[in-house]
Amino acid sequence: MTGKPFVWPVRVYYEETDAGGVVYHSNYLCFMERARTEWLRGLGFGQEQCRRERGLLFAVTKMEIHFLAPARLDDTLTVSVQLLGYKQASVTLQQSIQREQEQRQLIQATVRLVALNDRFKPTRLPEELVQMLCGAV
Amino acid sequence: MTGKPFVWPVRVYYEETDAGGVVYHSNYLCFMERARTEWLRGLGFGQEQCRRERGLLFAVTKMEIHFLAPARLDDTLTVSVQLLGYKQASVTLQQSIQREQEQRQLIQATVRLVALNDRFKPTRLPEELVQMLCGAV
Amino acid sequence: MTGKPFVWPVRVYYEETDAGGVVYHSNYLCFMERARTEWLRGLGFGQEQCRRERGLLFAVTKMEIHFLAPARLDDTLTVSVQLLGYKQASVTLQQSIQREQEQRQLIQATVRLVALNDRFKPTRLPEELVQMLCGAV
Amino acid sequence: MTGKPFVWPVRVYYEETDAGGVVYHSNYLCFMERARTEWLRGLGFGQEQCRRERGLLFAVTKMEIHFLAPARLDDTLTVSVQLLGYKQASVTLQQSIQREQEQRQLIQATVRLVALNDRFKPTRLPEELVQMLCGAV
Repeated sequence: MTGKPFVWPVRVYYEETDAGGVVYHSNYLCFMERARTEWLRGLGFGQEQCRRERGLLFAVTKMEIHFLAPARLDDTLTVSVQLLGYKQASVTLQQSIQREQEQRQLIQATVRLVALNDRFKPTRLPEELVQMLCGAV
Repeated sequence: MTGKPFVWPVRVYYEETDAGGVVYHSNYLCFMERARTEWLRGLGFGQEQCRRERGLLFAVTKMEIHFLAPARLDDTLTVSVQLLGYKQASVTLQQSIQREQEQRQLIQATVRLVALNDRFKPTRLPEELVQMLCGAV
Repeated sequence: MTGKPFVWPVRVYYEETDAGGVVYHSNYLCFMERARTEWLRGLGFGQEQCRRERGLLFAVTKMEIHFLAPARLDDTLTVSVQLLGYKQASVTLQQSIQREQEQRQLIQATVRLVALNDRFKPTRLPEELVQMLCGAV
Repeated sequence: MTGKPFVWPVRVYYEETDAGGVVYHSNYLCFMERARTEWLRGLGFGQEQCRRERGLLFAVTKMEIHFLAPARLDDTLTVSVQLLGYKQASVTLQQSIQREQEQRQLIQATVRLVALNDRFKPTRLPEELVQMLCGAV
């Protein structure tokens, strides 16, 4: 695993917290998806554009998540995306969430994405995407 | 306004609360939509079925909501739907949310729904639906 | 009503859309709350800080919303906040949502916020906040 | 692993779907939490009651999820909870989501819950809960 991870900032609002006073656990998955979306957009694969122009979707098929410490209201978080590997139709990423300017990880996850065509069947990753991923692993 | 309101029970889980210890305000709109969905399903207009078989969607175009008192984690709520009136392409409903077996209203709302065709244009309410609504106003 | 509205950008992600292909209606309330939070933060009233240091919360007590046109996946939205007026314990705001660089309003809303103390009772707006609002109406 | 799993029904509403036409992936975590909450409630450990009377919270610390097939609008799902094991302060569960009266699993997950005291530190599982779990493994 080489290359610098992509990072994306996320601010925590009331909508994402719960009565325990912390971010509700499923919302970290939303935060990680925002970072993946921006990472893909930066590579030229905006999700809506992909769907419209290529009939291509990316779906999460597997996720392993460690919830190490909670984020709180008004925190500014840094969500990272790092490529671990890829196959014909899938990409495996490592993602983490930290508070801005802190080292401690709040969330650590491994995420597998599969490319789907418009009938929801696995399909090859686009060649241009593979070439960019090549440089990143 | 006559006829008994339709009522639907909703249990409050952590996902719906916020760091203030109460239900996050936008989630009451979800609770009210669940009740409208079940009310329509009971009239024979399940939303997915409508979309597939008739190319028909119902969209909220206007809402006035009074947030009178908060609901809390583990509360069992009663969400009501009562028809106020209807036009060619729209329905106006009164909705309220109470705790089960309490009189006090937590939420009171007036909601206007419009029937849309599959190009998202307003379209006449189905005749069978109008006939059922006729009896309910 | 004078003064320029405060505006805050919001990007639409998959989490906020629904099977109709557009933003799910209750999520516009979240977008409007993000803009209000940033508006208050800009005035020196960050919500978490207010809660911790002053035992002060802001709660929505009334909202009138017009859903004029839908936002879609990947849209960049501009959410505005404009002060309409204030009383001892409450603030009334006008909010709208547009697509970036479009004039058409997708959402238009009037929102009343009430200041609450830590026992959830209405309480006077802080004097410093009132003075800033004074200049803004 | 013995004993019958606990099962809880969940209906899919618009709020839980996304523009791909299926349930948004993070919402399966909410569905699984609803089932865990009802499982615990059935054992006499309602979450709000635990928090108020015992200062006890349950937090997810690790989750491995396989997203095998998507659920859709209006589906009635069956969410299961089965105890895999427990330690002094934690419980490990297997959870799955299926469509009602179908065998195929849509979601399969392993979830570790930790008991936390009111300072968010791990704490022993209550003795009465352990005795009930004893019978269930």
